[in-house]
Amino acid sequence: MLQINPDRLWQSLMDLARIGATEKGGVRRLTLTDTDRRGRDQFVAWCKEAGMTVEVDGIGNIFGRRAGTEVDALPVAMGSHLDSQPSGGKFDGAYGVMAGLEVVRTLNDADIRTRAPIEVAAWTNEEGSRFVPTLMGSGVFAGVFSLENALEAKDVDGISVREALASTGYAGKARPHQLGAYFEAHIEQGPVLEQTKTTIGVVLGALGQRWFDVLIAGQDSHAGPTPMETRKDALLAASRLVIEVNRIATTFPDYARGTVGFMQVKPNSRNVVPGEVRTTVDLRNAKDATLSSMVEELKRCVARIAADCRVEIDLKEVVYFPPSEFAADLVESVREGSKKFGYSHRDIVSGAAHDAVYMARIAPTAMVFVPCEGGISHNEIENARPEDIAAGCNVLLHAVLGCAGTA
Amino acid sequence: MLQINPDRLWQSLMDLARIGATEKGGVRRLTLTDTDRRGRDQFVAWCKEAGMTVEVDGIGNIFGRRAGTEVDALPVAMGSHLDSQPSGGKFDGAYGVMAGLEVVRTLNDADIRTRAPIEVAAWTNEEGSRFVPTLMGSGVFAGVFSLENALEAKDVDGISVREALASTGYAGKARPHQLGAYFEAHIEQGPVLEQTKTTIGVVLGALGQRWFDVLIAGQDSHAGPTPMETRKDALLAASRLVIEVNRIATTFPDYARGTVGFMQVKPNSRNVVPGEVRTTVDLRNAKDATLSSMVEELKRCVARIAADCRVEIDLKEVVYFPPSEFAADLVESVREGSKKFGYSHRDIVSGAAHDAVYMARIAPTAMVFVPCEGGISHNEIENARPEDIAAGCNVLLHAVLGCAGTA
Repeated sequence: MLQINPDRLWQSLMDLARIGATEKGGVRRLTLTDTDRRGRDQFVAWCKEAGMTVEVDGIGNIFGRRAGTEVDALPVAMGSHLDSQPSGGKFDGAYGVMAGLEVVRTLNDADIRTRAPIEVAAWTNEEGSRFVPTLMGSGVFAGVFSLENALEAKDVDGISVREALASTGYAGKARPHQLGAYFEAHIEQGPVLEQTKTTIGVVLGALGQRWFDVLIAGQDSHAGPTPMETRKDALLAASRLVIEVNRIATTFPDYARGTVGFMQVKPNSRNVVPGEVRTTVDLRNAKDATLSSMVEELKRCVARIAADCRVEIDLKEVVYFPPSEFAADLVESVREGSKKFGYSHRDIVSGAAHDAVYMARIAPTAMVFVPCEGGISHNEIENARPEDIAAGCNVLLHAVLGCAGTA
Repeated sequence: MLQINPDRLWQSLMDLARIGATEKGGVRRLTLTDTDRRGRDQFVAWCKEAGMTVEVDGIGNIFGRRAGTEVDALPVAMGSHLDSQPSGGKFDGAYGVMAGLEVVRTLNDADIRTRAPIEVAAWTNEEGSRFVPTLMGSGVFAGVFSLENALEAKDVDGISVREALASTGYAGKARPHQLGAYFEAHIEQGPVLEQTKTTIGVVLGALGQRWFDVLIAGQDSHAGPTPMETRKDALLAASRLVIEVNRIATTFPDYARGTVGFMQVKPNSRNVVPGEVRTTVDLRNAKDATLSSMVEELKRCVARIAADCRVEIDLKEVVYFPPSEFAADLVESVREGSKKFGYSHRDIVSGAAHDAVYMARIAPTAMVFVPCEGGISHNEIENARPEDIAAGCNVLLHAVLGCAGTA
């Protein structure tokens, strides 16, 4: 049974992690910095060593291409991103690109020709740490953002994406092209696989997200002289909101999640009843209809809390990101791959967005998750086990071969 | 029936408010600044005009004294403070001092001699805005703080109380002396009198206070990939704490109050489950035993929340200020005074501390509250109606005369 080379894959990940390595064992490779340029150069060199042709498009996405036997077949692509968070880890993004490269290397070793061409993509600026929006490269490729707008985005020093592409030499000419399928391997960035001792997460899709800014206006007053029954305590209202958001997320179906992550209290003095709170709500769900029901329930709660606490609550939606459902046949091929290799596996929904989420809008898409230590990512201590990294790549190999067909 | 001169009292308050007047109609007269010195000088000049002798003690408390007919009788004192918050109002403190002065002026006009001497006290640094602790002058007078320690307190520029007293000329030599009784007129600084359309608050005492610092340690994690059931959400725990504190304060008897006024969330990012929250709890009650029961209930809630939310909660008591009960006969004389003048009145407990709270430890003490607009104080828009200001002073006159006796 065809298998990838685990040591080579691990070694490539470790070699790549030396570019921008941090003292605590992490990676700092911000989009289109010179460090990112060195990571890209390394990837391009490896693609060419593996016999692939390399193209770069207008937003700097890199495509390594291994020809297929059928001239008109749409390419089967794998990929992820090479940029990192400011204090990022070795695996987030890099794994998906290196796994794609390892699949190609394995096909080369076994001298296997595929019917459809195979591509390995490295998408520009997935993290959004230097330039916003996040998922910029895959978003431009999928037509979610215009290339022109993306090129105008500036970092904190006023340097634009256009300038950064020019200075790193990654302002390419390739035009967006059609894909037959897209696969992305990624660390889970959550605790489920590790806690359930599961090797492979068969990703069904990604949660939709609806984000809200909340402003609660009460009346600040002295904690001593103000009787409880006349207070307009904005923090009491905010606290009830937090509890309701958690209740909604724990009672609604379809992978419901709800988070209040931000809170700012005014005047924020221990003996003053708070007169104003700014906070946020992040609701997620795998089904758009359920997500809408969660939002309706949130609005009912907000109205009730405002009345009960004698405060005004302004709830403003600031982000809507619909759920994405991956292609059933591709998801099934990931599941089958897991079975074939005897890996423990479970269906999972991605709570975070990935390049695959935008790719799903233009091509049949699926993802393969592997466990990461403690569910921790976006952190220098991000870690994954070599055997899990290898397992995810074997599943990827199986799924890609199934799609691309052998000659 | 003997009555004070409402116009003269109001005019004195307005004249005093010109010293340190702010653009928005408030007062900025920080303790022992040159502005405070000018306010003190004005008060001393008025005392002397009213025929009083003036003494200043080691912490700068000023005592205007009108002699009584009985040589050995302990003085009946009135007073409050002349210092203000950085953005303070015209009435907080100043009212109690000017009302005392007006009582003396009224006795002078009517040529009434009292058996016991009458004193009008202006206590140093009640607000604590420039030097801590608050209630410094009355605290030193009552033996709560040592004079030496108080003199060493420094402001943010490193200037000590000792230096500030010297530079303003208010480092006096008078020793603490015994008082036969102490009365303090003050704006309510709360909404009860205004909301119940009551002119006089007959103050039974002041709430005890127990303050806590709270540190909640959970685990921050991504809002997307982290299922609800594995979270260790410090803000969810903090929110439950806020709700329990409010429940305790609304269900316990004896003027129970409970406030969470401060909250700091980490990392405070909308799509990260909060891993740490620092917050505070302020519990108040008129009875020490009930206050203790509230604390016991708080501790039970904290233990339950910590277990439910899988977080650690550290609860540390940082302030304990026992309830004070004013002298029943003096309180009754305030009540009688209200009846005599036909003023609407109600029993009330002071939620905040006042100089009277420390005076109550060394002398029979009572307070007279009058309404303030919207219950607002410590603010430049602090306001009170002339007729209420006059009414409180008439009640003070009645109560003081009852204590001091006429010759």
